[in-house]
This record gives sequence, structure tokens and C-alpha cells, in this order.
Amino acid sequence: MTTHKPIGPVDATKVPRYAGLGTFARLPQIDAVPDYDIAIVGVPFDGGCSFRPGARFGPAGVREASRLLRPGYHVELGVEPVREAQVVDAGDIACTPYNITRAVEEIEEQALPLMAIDKKVVAIGGDHTIALPMLRALNKVHGPVALLHFDAHLDTWDTYFDEPITHGTIFRRAFEEGLLVEDKSMHVGIRGPVYDQKDFLDDHAFGFQIIRCSDIDVIGVPAAIQKVKDRLGDTPVYVSIDIDVLDPAFAPGTGTPEMGGLHSRELLALLRGLDGINIVGADVVEVAPAYDHADITTLAAATVVFDLLGLMVNRDKKANRSGDSALESATA
Amino acid sequence: MTTHKPIGPVDATKVPRYAGLGTFARLPQIDAVPDYDIAIVGVPFDGGCSFRPGARFGPAGVREASRLLRPGYHVELGVEPVREAQVVDAGDIACTPYNITRAVEEIEEQALPLMAIDKKVVAIGGDHTIALPMLRALNKVHGPVALLHFDAHLDTWDTYFDEPITHGTIFRRAFEEGLLVEDKSMHVGIRGPVYDQKDFLDDHAFGFQIIRCSDIDVIGVPAAIQKVKDRLGDTPVYVSIDIDVLDPAFAPGTGTPEMGGLHSRELLALLRGLDGINIVGADVVEVAPAYDHADITTLAAATVVFDLLGLMVNRDKKANRSGDSALESATA
Amino acid sequence: MTTHKPIGPVDATKVPRYAGLGTFARLPQIDAVPDYDIAIVGVPFDGGCSFRPGARFGPAGVREASRLLRPGYHVELGVEPVREAQVVDAGDIACTPYNITRAVEEIEEQALPLMAIDKKVVAIGGDHTIALPMLRALNKVHGPVALLHFDAHLDTWDTYFDEPITHGTIFRRAFEEGLLVEDKSMHVGIRGPVYDQKDFLDDHAFGFQIIRCSDIDVIGVPAAIQKVKDRLGDTPVYVSIDIDVLDPAFAPGTGTPEMGGLHSRELLALLRGLDGINIVGADVVEVAPAYDHADITTLAAATVVFDLLGLMVNRDKKANRSGDSALESATA
Amino acid sequence: MTTHKPIGPVDATKVPRYAGLGTFARLPQIDAVPDYDIAIVGVPFDGGCSFRPGARFGPAGVREASRLLRPGYHVELGVEPVREAQVVDAGDIACTPYNITRAVEEIEEQALPLMAIDKKVVAIGGDHTIALPMLRALNKVHGPVALLHFDAHLDTWDTYFDEPITHGTIFRRAFEEGLLVEDKSMHVGIRGPVYDQKDFLDDHAFGFQIIRCSDIDVIGVPAAIQKVKDRLGDTPVYVSIDIDVLDPAFAPGTGTPEMGGLHSRELLALLRGLDGINIVGADVVEVAPAYDHADITTLAAATVVFDLLGLMVNRDKKANRSGDSALESATA
Amino acid sequence: MTTHKPIGPVDATKVPRYAGLGTFARLPQIDAVPDYDIAIVGVPFDGGCSFRPGARFGPAGVREASRLLRPGYHVELGVEPVREAQVVDAGDIACTPYNITRAVEEIEEQALPLMAIDKKVVAIGGDHTIALPMLRALNKVHGPVALLHFDAHLDTWDTYFDEPITHGTIFRRAFEEGLLVEDKSMHVGIRGPVYDQKDFLDDHAFGFQIIRCSDIDVIGVPAAIQKVKDRLGDTPVYVSIDIDVLDPAFAPGTGTPEMGGLHSRELLALLRGLDGINIVGADVVEVAPAYDHADITTLAAATVVFDLLGLMVNRDKKANRSGDSALESATA
Amino acid sequence: MTTHKPIGPVDATKVPRYAGLGTFARLPQIDAVPDYDIAIVGVPFDGGCSFRPGARFGPAGVREASRLLRPGYHVELGVEPVREAQVVDAGDIACTPYNITRAVEEIEEQALPLMAIDKKVVAIGGDHTIALPMLRALNKVHGPVALLHFDAHLDTWDTYFDEPITHGTIFRRAFEEGLLVEDKSMHVGIRGPVYDQKDFLDDHAFGFQIIRCSDIDVIGVPAAIQKVKDRLGDTPVYVSIDIDVLDPAFAPGTGTPEMGGLHSRELLALLRGLDGINIVGADVVEVAPAYDHADITTLAAATVVFDLLGLMVNRDKKANRSGDSALESATA
Repeated sequence: MTTHKPIGPVDATKVPRYAGLGTFARLPQIDAVPDYDIAIVGVPFDGGCSFRPGARFGPAGVREASRLLRPGYHVELGVEPVREAQVVDAGDIACTPYNITRAVEEIEEQALPLMAIDKKVVAIGGDHTIALPMLRALNKVHGPVALLHFDAHLDTWDTYFDEPITHGTIFRRAFEEGLLVEDKSMHVGIRGPVYDQKDFLDDHAFGFQIIRCSDIDVIGVPAAIQKVKDRLGDTPVYVSIDIDVLDPAFAPGTGTPEMGGLHSRELLALLRGLDGINIVGADVVEVAPAYDHADITTLAAATVVFDLLGLMVNRDKKANRSGDSALESATA
Repeated sequence: MTTHKPIGPVDATKVPRYAGLGTFARLPQIDAVPDYDIAIVGVPFDGGCSFRPGARFGPAGVREASRLLRPGYHVELGVEPVREAQVVDAGDIACTPYNITRAVEEIEEQALPLMAIDKKVVAIGGDHTIALPMLRALNKVHGPVALLHFDAHLDTWDTYFDEPITHGTIFRRAFEEGLLVEDKSMHVGIRGPVYDQKDFLDDHAFGFQIIRCSDIDVIGVPAAIQKVKDRLGDTPVYVSIDIDVLDPAFAPGTGTPEMGGLHSRELLALLRGLDGINIVGADVVEVAPAYDHADITTLAAATVVFDLLGLMVNRDKKANRSGDSALESATA
Repeated sequence: MTTHKPIGPVDATKVPRYAGLGTFARLPQIDAVPDYDIAIVGVPFDGGCSFRPGARFGPAGVREASRLLRPGYHVELGVEPVREAQVVDAGDIACTPYNITRAVEEIEEQALPLMAIDKKVVAIGGDHTIALPMLRALNKVHGPVALLHFDAHLDTWDTYFDEPITHGTIFRRAFEEGLLVEDKSMHVGIRGPVYDQKDFLDDHAFGFQIIRCSDIDVIGVPAAIQKVKDRLGDTPVYVSIDIDVLDPAFAPGTGTPEMGGLHSRELLALLRGLDGINIVGADVVEVAPAYDHADITTLAAATVVFDLLGLMVNRDKKANRSGDSALESATA
Repeated sequence: MTTHKPIGPVDATKVPRYAGLGTFARLPQIDAVPDYDIAIVGVPFDGGCSFRPGARFGPAGVREASRLLRPGYHVELGVEPVREAQVVDAGDIACTPYNITRAVEEIEEQALPLMAIDKKVVAIGGDHTIALPMLRALNKVHGPVALLHFDAHLDTWDTYFDEPITHGTIFRRAFEEGLLVEDKSMHVGIRGPVYDQKDFLDDHAFGFQIIRCSDIDVIGVPAAIQKVKDRLGDTPVYVSIDIDVLDPAFAPGTGTPEMGGLHSRELLALLRGLDGINIVGADVVEVAPAYDHADITTLAAATVVFDLLGLMVNRDKKANRSGDSALESATA
Repeated sequence: MTTHKPIGPVDATKVPRYAGLGTFARLPQIDAVPDYDIAIVGVPFDGGCSFRPGARFGPAGVREASRLLRPGYHVELGVEPVREAQVVDAGDIACTPYNITRAVEEIEEQALPLMAIDKKVVAIGGDHTIALPMLRALNKVHGPVALLHFDAHLDTWDTYFDEPITHGTIFRRAFEEGLLVEDKSMHVGIRGPVYDQKDFLDDHAFGFQIIRCSDIDVIGVPAAIQKVKDRLGDTPVYVSIDIDVLDPAFAPGTGTPEMGGLHSRELLALLRGLDGINIVGADVVEVAPAYDHADITTLAAATVVFDLLGLMVNRDKKANRSGDSALESATA
Repeated sequence: MTTHKPIGPVDATKVPRYAGLGTFARLPQIDAVPDYDIAIVGVPFDGGCSFRPGARFGPAGVREASRLLRPGYHVELGVEPVREAQVVDAGDIACTPYNITRAVEEIEEQALPLMAIDKKVVAIGGDHTIALPMLRALNKVHGPVALLHFDAHLDTWDTYFDEPITHGTIFRRAFEEGLLVEDKSMHVGIRGPVYDQKDFLDDHAFGFQIIRCSDIDVIGVPAAIQKVKDRLGDTPVYVSIDIDVLDPAFAPGTGTPEMGGLHSRELLALLRGLDGINIVGADVVEVAPAYDHADITTLAAATVVFDLLGLMVNRDKKANRSGDSALESATA
């Protein structure tokens, strides 16, 4: 962790939350601190979207909604993410809206430096396409990772309109490129019909397990948490959260909504139940503010980002503590 | 079933889902196929509405939202509705907006030919008034049926402003006209106060059973499914789904919203739990797009229509299989 | 209770619900009846709001949405609130939008006369600031009361921008002023991070108990009801419902939405489960119609007000009955 | 005029405009004054609408928006309408939503008593159908009148779906029934294509003159005013304003919007230019709040109603003054 | 022109306008007629958009709004476009959303066959990118054309993010490719600041003339019409209408709105003033329904398409008449 | 002017306009430059609002919409504001939402340092209350100024609810405090009725002239410009633009909309016609994003701010040039 005392958000008792420039949770910009532990970066690319575009406005929308956060003590996780670690807003990655291949390269290039040893990145999309360059960059730092994927859709299709990289195909590409640890990845929140039954066979062949929303109806959230924990163990994991994992009632502002999704409390309980897993990177994607109402989707995304911060900081604390106690026992 | 290989929807990997004329789920129009098993027909009538009108735009709205469906394999039901049967979009019934009596006649006249022996119809309303002419037409084909009615409201009131046929009175009329099998019908999702306690006595006298939302709080969805199955048995059943059975959070685009409704996953679980019941006709009504947001209500309605297709096709498969095996044993 | 036969709402079978002046549930205005049991009063003040203002339009918005109520028989509570008691719409309290101190005085002054012995008031906010003058007035009539507080937020902070009375500090002030019975008050529905862990210590020191949304995930609604009942016993209680206790999906129209809230059925079940508690006053606050969609928030608030009426009338019936039977046994 | 000092609106410096029950411009209800000069009455009927329904919520919507009016001195007209005359809110006419014929009778029956000798009525629709019963009632009091009709559409079609009375046919009916003075009526603001060129021939045959929006492009507003004044002279006139005479940018909340309409300043200038004409009754119709945004349509309608009040009161003043001066000269 | 009597739209007196499948103005689909004069085709591509995407939903949105058209007699142009010519809805061009180069090829390929000798096409975008393949196809049929371009922006920039073909660069490309007749093209409605003064020099070098909105403030619409007519003469012209030429008040649903645009009546007057020019193709682009309200933008676009039909049919009539009279004089 | 080469906005050909932190027009933050000529500062205070609050979100909303600006060459003014001068985003002034008196002090305190000799400030409100502390600070730097006030309302009322400083009273206070040069100030765009005719007498007594919207109907924009120029001469002037000077169609997102306002092109023409006047400070206020649609109001405000920059820079250029030539002649 950084050695300086973390610089926190603007004080809401002195500057009203609606005032001032809207960095994420009103945290400092990356250049305003000597070093950082976790960077939040926007990736405003939606050129891989197959239905409703507009996730390019996701980073701006989530930042504005994040004004509502009270980024102090996280009760359920027992952590003060932005006090125990230096979290910064790294701004947005600049990439072309016009060419998927080039955009994906630009995203990887700009994300990689943010992930230097022991630094973590939470990306705010953008459509799901951005997960591929995030995984490519992460692979250069950490090698293959497990994927914990919250989504209504598998995103392991092959091509759309002959295009290999789109928001529905990135995890097949990630598998093919060896970016994923075999047999560790999971989809959570899948639902709805698919074009073809074979989609599931392919997905299974790539080593994914699936927890459908209808499974959660039967087994409940605690059992779902246990399945995920059993699967992931201590493998380094990339958490990719498509906001459409939530039911359209909770997240209307998204590109390919699907009836029958998770409720917001279920998503939060799932995430908080995973306290202790080894998250090395994450994204929250597919927030399309043009379809949102009263900021409920952008607020959900901002809250989920804050929970990810809590999980990351908690894990690092434990890692440090066990390191300490290892040290202690060594010196005892 | 039809003997030709069903003509399916437009291929979404070749024509983007937002492109082309918006038939339901981009299925073929009725004239483009030699024969069909199930017809989806719009009934854009809202002259029986007592509060927010606008369900006349329901068919157009649900069709546009149905572009989002991936109408291939239905995982929970294990069926490929539009590959295993020929489903068509029969367009809209043309009826006057100005005269309930006449409109109801026009609807019955135009619905009846669509219901020839072994053909099924799913109607998209329109307000709930349209269920009466649907039941009248169905009665001419099948005789009395059981009614499985998802709704916030009973719709068995007597008259409004002296009018016998409105969206709140049609099931009393249906009972009086002998369109319903006695003691087989059910309301699911009822909630909210009523004008008078006597409303329930009347309803009971017409042979309805009720599962309130507050009952589901107590007994849970699986028990509710069992109650419905026990009640319906193998009786031919008409399923009438007022979208306001969903909570306003899940279906704001409706005429008489009522707090405290079903969640979308509950409605889907209820429907899917009924796999095997003998559905001979159905409607999804009271979708008022002017009050919708980001298509969440129209998408819910479109999804529910697709589930109804799945239930219908599954039942026919089983019926055919048992017919086959009957044949087999006869020839054995 | 009043001795005259209660004058009820406008008859919806003669005057459509969308017609006529919009008093709450189309009940009579206060001047149109000789006496009343319960007054509903609007308090359109939002000068204490820290984020999205607009709750000044709450009373007008809730009244318009209350047209949708069918204010007859309440099934779950077994009561006909507006037939068994005289309920009136007392209009709005007129207070300055510009000065919190003065507004709070004006609210108390105008609320107090409505609360004469054996009269009850349900206030429609306005932001949560209005609960303080309501409690002050109530204290003059009943002495200290227990507080049953449904909210995403504690509202026991100290000051914002040096201001002692705002929508986030009123219950600390109420405690300090001795308006609350010690160790009887509860918060239900709390969630989200806080600025500081100390917030909870303070809150605890003021004698509050907390049921978080994440607690309800674990213990369920029935156990939560029991905890509240055990806590309150028969103490006179003021029920204060911040509509943001509901998840933003169910109540987008509010000033400080927080992901992960109660579902509307949970809130209704909690309220109805409390049948029998001794409610002496209530408010429903923080409805900001400018952020609402299709009236789902205002309708939720109106429905909750109607449930409060049911609880109040039921309790009075029982009180009267036990009074009667006391009389009977005395004269036996 | 009434002999008592008119009771004006609620004082906005004491009761904020957003507070209290929303009568039109916060004027007194009809029962709260001993007598009145002009009654504003809502007619929430939209059963004659051919496209987007919802004008049944017009009266409630216009009343809420009328809170924004500052109903004192009207600068352009030099009059204080609600101080120089007693204006009241007469509430809404209760009529069935289900039967056009019956509704039209109910409207006439309830409007007629409001129009006693020397009393005027401004009706707020509702769809344009309501103009027919208004004209029928007016005919019983005043005999035939001239019609000054602001609209995008002629509304002199014959029947829709065989229905003689709809929102597009009422002025043909009015002509046939002899309710209109021959060769005095005008349409202003007409635009857009029509189904058939014959529509204009019919319209001409009924004695209407037309000022199209494209005419105003050429001749300008002052010349248009002159044409109307020349046509009307001092004939008693009924002013019927379909809000869709405004361009959809200025009045999106209406049932059959038509591109290329009047700008709000043009409509106000036209109305104010007509100061002195002999208005005996008026309506403002086709406001459908569900399609409105930020109340711009309802506010436009409310403003136009206030202008109509100004025109009516100004005319009466002059009439009285000329009566006075006649008296004076007689006694000189 | 086609020799069969044109098949017109669905009869709105028999089928309500909100009913049935939404082809443009409810005209026949292309396969339902033996031949046609003018085809309306959707081009749902928005991959060239630099700010708010979503014009891919333009064709579907404009079609739905076109239900409101009364496509009979066009008063200002004195023509019955869909009776005097066979106009059809040719559906949508299917093109990839993911690759500009490929999409542009697909659009050209599918547009070309629709433009056979003496057939005209009106394209509904999609973003402005689609004008380039339209011009390329048109060039193959007609050779170079004049461009009459209504827009807030020049769209003659060079590249964005190194991409040569985007919605802001297509007319530079068209000029470079020789698709435009030199010194005949015009921009109308330009406004707002530009990145660089050089933008105008380039534009001028490509042979464009400009009428800015601020010019119209000074010279008025009639003089603007004359300037356009003088410029175009009888050159075959392609009319390209970016809906953002309208002020955002009149067309909020677009990707790059710019304050201070044309009013809807001005655009209509400009178009109608050009009666007689030799239009050989046209588009209406940049309609992004997600940002629209109450369909005012989509309705504006639909109305403009209908006006373009009127201009095209009128011109053909005159051409035919002069051909006839040439024939007559030859045989005289 | 500053001596360094101005640092301009982020390059939109390298970083898409929707990307990165949203400073005004993506200009540098104040700390990122050595010095500046003009500072844009947000003043998110709406505690003086009498109807719809929400202008506290004005600065954030206008900044987001300002992404759409192309802040290079301003054609009508012939200036490149952000290249010819150093313009910066100074962030927001932090002031309490709860106490008008204190907020007004805080605003003055924080605005004053931004206005050092030869530095100018454009404030983005907030409600109109903020103009008073702006004028107070300006007075300390420049002494009394002329006020050029664009608004639907006079804002020279005395008190509301006994409060001397509100959004409707600030210019009376400014007059009383001697902040305004006598007989130089003007209101432009006034319209609508007022509570009392005396309001105009008071206003006149304070030395204001008025150009009503209905005056512009008669005299036209050029004559209005001349009247303003004649009035202002070369007096230092503070320009205060209440966005409600625009018609609600062009600016729905405001607190007290008034029918019949300026069109956006009129406002721009008025401003641009004033090139050369001596603006020493300015504000754009009363933008309430919660009531906006598709950012049309916030975009209008952003555009107007950019025009103000153009006017300020143009004036300084001329001043410098005449200074230079004075210098030249002195040294000649």
C-alpha cells in the first residue's frame, strides 16, 4: 500500500455534494497524490454494442451519480476504503469511437501503466468490449486470472456480423487468448432465451460455470455465494459486472436489458458475501445514461464500484496482516 | 402442428435487431407462411379503461420491445418455441375506439378465424376489455375454459358508469355468459384495497379462487404454483395476464398501477412452474407505453408472451408424444 | 371517535377518479365536516434538503397519485379506514421556503391545533426536516413518544454546514429535546456507507436500535416485525417514513436515493405486521415528484398513507372495544 | 357583474404557490363565493380521441400548472381579470368515459347551469369533443354564435368509424345543428396534409374561413388579427383553442401533434390583438399531460385561459362603460 | 411513373392509425406492389457518430411517428404524393454496426438496386455517414449531383481520430470522389462556433455556399429560398437533411444538438419554396429517438420525408407534362 | 491580458468530447494555468427559489452540456475566445444550502478574489439570488455598474415571506445598496402578468427600462439591440441572464417558466448585436436540470456563456488595440 496518509474525498460538510468537479466519489484526481493503491478509470467506448448504444456516457454518468455516495465507513464490509487506501480518479481513457480493433489497443495501452505492481484498477465502461483489453493488460501484469462475471448474457458468442470483438464475444476471445485460468470462471445472473442451445455447450467447453437467476430462485443467495467461493478459491480474479445483471426495474439505463434479473439487494449481498476473494481488477460496464431515470442505474453502478473498493482494500489488509503475522511468528 | 419446417425470425447475426419492420420477435407475418400453429395478434383497444388510457399503443410498443428477445432456446422450459412450431404475427385487429359494444364484436369476429382447430392465439392488448371477446371466440371453438388470471385487480365488478363491459367487469360478464368452467378459475397477484368487502363475496360466488401477493409473501412461489396446478388440472385454460400484476417498479407503463406487486422473477417463475397446463389461448394486456420508461414494461410483456409460446409448444409436444405412444402401443 | 357517520370520498362510480379537485383519496376537505378523527396535512417544505430538492411538491404529487386508491376495504388489515373513522384532508401548512428556523416554527404552530385530544395527524412532506416540528407539537399533546423510523439514513447527524436543523439531523435534535421515550426508538431499512463509524455510536447512544436492509436479508420480514413489536410494546409511537427506505427502483422520486432498499411488498408487510401498535402520529416524507416516473413514488407514498390510516383506525377500534368491555364488565 | 368585491386567489406572499389545493390559479371554489362572473370548469373527457388519449387528465394538469400564474395585472391587456370580476373554479363536470353520446349529454346538462344570464364559462378539456356540448348549452342561452377556432386541424370531418361525434367532427355537427352563425366562423393555425382535398370544400361550404400557419408566414400576425376582427365584428363568439395549434415544440403534450405550428408568442399576440371581440364562451382542449414535459403544455394552456379571462373582463368593462356613458348622456 | 394505379396507405377511417404494422405512413411494403416510383428506405447505422449515438433507431422511430401523418392532399404543394405516384416502404438496409468501411459498402450495395432508372429513394438515417454511400450509389445512376444540405454543421471536416469516413466528414469525401457537381452545393442552417476558422476556407474551396441561421435572421426565408434556387437551377440535386438543422426545441432527439436552429415552420417554408427543383435523391438523418420527447423529433422527420415526396412527385408531374406538351406540339 | 499563450480546451480530435472530466468546455482548471483573463465559476445555490428548486445542479449540468461546444472560432463575433484569452474553469463556490444570508456572504467572499484587476468572471447559477453577491463583489472592484438583465421577470420585488434576499428581489436590493449606476439598467424579455401594477412603478423608480417580449414582436430584434446600446453606452455593465428569458420550449429546465419567451435565435442575435459593450461581469442563472430534456436548457446556457466570452474578449481586443494605437501615436 502507499505510504502516505490517503487523501480522501472532498468533505461533504464543507462543500455540498452537488458542488465542484465530479470526480468519482469526489476523490482526488490521479495527479494530485504522490502515489495510489487503486485507480478508477473511465473507458467511454461503446462501439461494440449490438442494440442500444450510449455506454460512452457511462463514465460521466456514474461519476455524477457517485456524488451521492457517502464514501466513509462500509458497514457490511467493516472497512473504510478511501481512508485505508489511496484511491484516485484516473480520468478517462481516450480511444477512438470508430474502430473496434484500434480502440481495444488504445484501451490496453492506457490501462496497463495504471496497473503497475500492487496497483489495482476498476474500470467504468463503456460497453462490455472493454473487458477484453482490461484482461489483456492484466495478463501482462498477473498472468491468467479467473473471471467472475455478473451479467444477464454469456458474452461468449463467436462473432457478430463477422466481427470477432464485440460486447457479446469478448470472453470467448479471452479464453482463446489464454487470459483466463481454466475451470475457474463463472457467470452469475444469466437469464433469458438464447439463439441456440449450442451457446451453452460452447460456454461450458470454455470452462465456465453458470448460476442463472432461476438457480438463485431455488438455492438462494447464500448458497450461490458459497458456489462462487468454492470455485474461485484464492485464484486471482477479475470481476466484470455488466449492470444488466440487475433487473431492468433496478437498472433501466443499459443497452440490452433482460427481464427477470437480480434485485439490487441480491447483487450487493452476493458481492459482500465474497469478502476475501482475491480481486486483482474489475469493471462495471454497460451503463447507458440516456435510458436511465433519476440516476438509478448510474447510482447502482457507483455503489457497486464502491463495494469493489471495499473488497479490494479488505483483501489487502488481510494479506498484509497475514504477512505481518508471518513476520511476527518468524521473529517470535 | 403444421407440417412445414417453421419459418423463424429474421437472423440477428445478419440483420441487426434494431433493423427492419418490427413484427413480434421479428417473426414472419401471417401471410408469409403456408400455415401456422400460434398467431400473435394485437388488439389495440383501450376504450374500457377507467384511469390512464393508452393501451391502444400496447401492440406497437410490445412489438418494438420484442426486438430485444433472442427467440431461440428457452432454457427453463427446454423448448425452442419458434423452431418447434410455426408462430406468426397476425397484425392487429381493427376495431373502433369509440364504441365498446361494437369494438367487442369486431374483436370477436376477427379473433375467431385465427383460432381454427388446433391453432392458438396470444393477444396483446389493449386494455383488459379485450379478454371478453377473446373468451367469447374461444368458447365457440373450445366451449367453456378455466381462467388463470394474473392481475392486481379482480375485474369482476358489475358496472362502471352503468356500462356492463369495461376493463374492470369482463370476468363477471364471462361468468354470466357461461364462458368459464365452474370452480376452476383463479386470480393471482391480487392486492390493494377495494371499494367494498362485498367485491370478494361476489368474486367467490363466481367460482374464483384468489392468491394475493400477500399470500405469496407467506407461502412462497412454489406453493402458489402447486395451488394453481391443483386447481386447473388438465382443464383447457385461458391465461390472461394484466401487466399490472407486476409491481409498478417493474411495469410502470400501465393504466391502473398498484403498489406491492409481483417482481418480474416471480411472474416468470410462476409461469414456468405451470409447464404442462393445457393453455388454449392467452392475452397480455394493459401495457400503456406512454407511461413506460426505457421499454421496461413493453419488454416485460414481450418476454411473457414468449414464455406463453414456450408453454403452449411444450404442451403440444407432450400431447403429440403421448398421442404417438398411444399409436405405438396400438400398433405394437 | 367522531359521532357523525363519516363522510367518505367522492364515489368513483359516479365521478371518475381523474375528475374533480384532488384532495387526498378524494376525501372531504376539513371544513366540510363537523368533526374528524384523522387529518391528513401537507407540509411542503424542502429547505432542509442536502442533495436533490423538490419535496415541496410532495403534497401536491401524493394527492394527485392518491386518485388511484380504492379507499374502501383494506383486506390485509380487515378495516375500512374512511368509513369507520372520519378522515379529512386538512390542506397544506403554509411556511416560508427561505428560513429553516422560522419554517419549523410555522409548521409546529399549524400542526398543533390539528392534534387536539383524540385527533391524529398524518403529515405528507416535504423533506424530513418536518418531522421535528411534528414531534414538538406531538410532545405538547402526548409527551414523549417512541420513534419508528423507516429510512435509508439515520438522520441523527449533528449539523450540516453548521445548521442544527436539517433533513439529516432532526432525530438527534428530537432526542436532545426530550421528545423521544428513551430506548424505544428504531430505525428500519438503514443501508449504505456512512461518513464515519462514529455515526453509529452516536445513534446508539441516543437509544436507537437499527434493522438494516442487510439484516432483513438474513432474518426475514416476520422476524423484523417481531423485533419492532417487542421494542415498541404499547408505547405511543410516531411513525416516520422516508420514502427512500424503498429501493430507488420502487421510489426514484426522492432526494437522496440509496441502492439496495426495501421492496414495496416488504414495506407493506412490515407496516401491516405492526397492526396493533399505538400510533399517535405519522409522516411520509422526501417524495420529490420531479424525479419520479409514472407516479410510482407518489403512488407508493399514497398507499403507505392509506395503510397508516388503517393501522390507526384498527387500533382505535380495539381500544374502544376494550374500553367497552371494561365498561361492560364494570356494569355486569 | 357581481356586486360583491371579488374574492381573489390565495396570496402568494403568504402561502407559497406550490402549497394548498390546486384550484385554477388558486382561485376560490364556486361554493365559496356568493356569486360569480366567470366560471372555469374542467371537462375531463377524452373518449372522442383518435390517436393519443389522455386529455382526461387535462383539467388536473392545467390546474397544477396554473400555480405558476401571477394572476394580477395583465400588462398587454391592461386589466386585472380576477380583481375586476369574480372568477371561480367550478370543479370538473362528471361524465362517463365509456359512451360518447351519454357523455356529451352529461356535459351539456352540467355546463348549462353555469352559463346563467351574464355568466361566462371557460372549459378546460378533455378532447375537442367537449366543444359540441358547450356549443349546445351556449345556444340555449345565447342562440347561434360565431366560432373562432384555433387548431392544427379543421375538425369538420364527417364520421370516424361511423361515429358522428368525435374530436374531429364536432364543428360539422355544430354547423348542421344550427349552433353557428353563418359565415362568421374561422379556423386559425390549420396546417399539414389532409386525407382529401374535398375536406376543404366541405369546410368552406359550412361557412368557415381559414388562416393557415403558412398564411401567417406570408401576411404576419397583425394582418391575421385584422382578418379575424373583420370577420367576427361584434357577433357573440365562442373561442375554441385546441392546444395543438401550437407547434409540438411548444405543446408536446397533446393527442395529435402536427409539425409547423404557431409559436407561443404568436398565439398570445393573436389573442391579445383580439381585445374587444364579444366572447361569450370558450374552451382550451386537447392537453394530454402524459405526453407533456416539465409542464410546458399545461402552463401554455393555463396562460391562455388567463388571457381569455382578460379578454372577457375587458369586453364587459367596455360594455358597462358604454352603458354608463349612455346613462350619463341620458342624465346630462 | 408506374403504370398501375398507386396502392396507397391503409385507410385510417377503417384501421385506426395506431393499429397495424408501422410501415412509413402505413404505405405498402415494397414486395406488395408490382412496381414503384419512390422507395423509402431505412438505414439504421450510427457508427459514424461523434457524440450521442442512437440514430440506429431512427428508421423505427420515424416510422412509428409517421402514423400521425394524413398522407393525402398536401395543401402548400398542391399534390397528392401517394396517390399520384407509387410510394413504398422498402424496409431497412442491413449493415454491420461495427465497421464503418464495410457498412458503407453494404449501404451502397443495397441502395443501388432501389435507384433503377426513374426510381427515387428517400433514406431515413442513421447518422450522416449514410449520405456518402447514398451519393456513391446515386453517382452510378445519375453522375455527379448538386448537394443541398440542411444542417447545423458543415460535415466537411477531414478526419476524426484518423477515420476518413464519419458523420462529420462525408461531404469532403464526396467532393474528393467527384460525386458533387462543382459550385452548385449549399449548406443551409449552419450555426455555432467551429474548431477552426480554416474549416470555412476548406468548405469554400470544395465549392459550397453557406446560408447560416444568422443570415436568415437578416435576409428572411423568401430570400434564402431564392438564393438556393439560383444556385441549384435545374441541376439534379441530392437533398440531405440533418434533423439538427432544427433548433433543439423542435428536434431534441438528435446526436449533436446546436442552439439557435431553424424553427419547424422555417424548414417547411424553405422546402416548400423549392418546389420545382430537380431532386433525384434525399435523406433525413440524425434522428436519435432515445433523446426525443413525445415524438416531436421523429414526427418532424416524418413530415419532412412527406414533403420531400411532394416535391419529387410535383417535379415529375411537370416533367411529364412538359414531355406531353412536347409530344402534343410535335403531333400538332 | 495574460502574457502566456492561452492553454485551450482538450483537443476533441484526440479525446472524444464525451470523455474526461467535464470542466466547462473542457477548459483547464484554474490551478493548471499560470494566470487567466476570464474565470468561469459555478455557484450552486438555489435557496432563494420560490417555485421549482434544483438550480443547485445548474453548474454540473451546464458543464456536462458544454462538452457539445466547439470552442474555437465564433463566426458571428469573429473571435476565438479561448485562444485569444486565457479562460479557466474555477470550479464551484462552496456555500451553505440552508441559510440565504450566510450563503450570500460566502459567495461574495469567494467571488471577489477571482475578480482581481483586469480579470472577469462569468458565474453559472444557481438561482438568481447569486447575482446580488456577484454585484456586491463587482462593486468593490469596479464601483457601480449598469445592469443588463435578460429575464421573464423583473426581480425587483420587495420581500417574499419577509425575506429581503430571494431570487425575485435581488435587483431591488442592488439598487438600494447603490450597486447600480442610475438610469442605465434594462430588463429584456419581460412578460406575463404581475401580482400588481405597482410592480412596474417601483421598477421604473429604480431607474430600469423594460423591453418586453411583446415589444420585440412590434419593434424587432435590431431595434431592441439599438435601444440597449443607446442605454448602456460605454458604462461598465453586468449582464445577468436568467435562462427563463427563453420560452419554455427552448428552456424547459428552469424554476419559474413563463409562456411566450424569447426564441433561442433571438437571444443569440440580441447578445451578438451588443458586440462592443463594456461587460465587466456576467451570470447565467436558473438552470434546473431536473426539469430539462435532452440537455436543451443546459446546452442553451453553455452556448450563452460562450457568447459572453466572445463579447468580453472582443471588447478587450478593441480596448487593447486602441491602447496600442494610443501608445503608437504617443511614440510616433
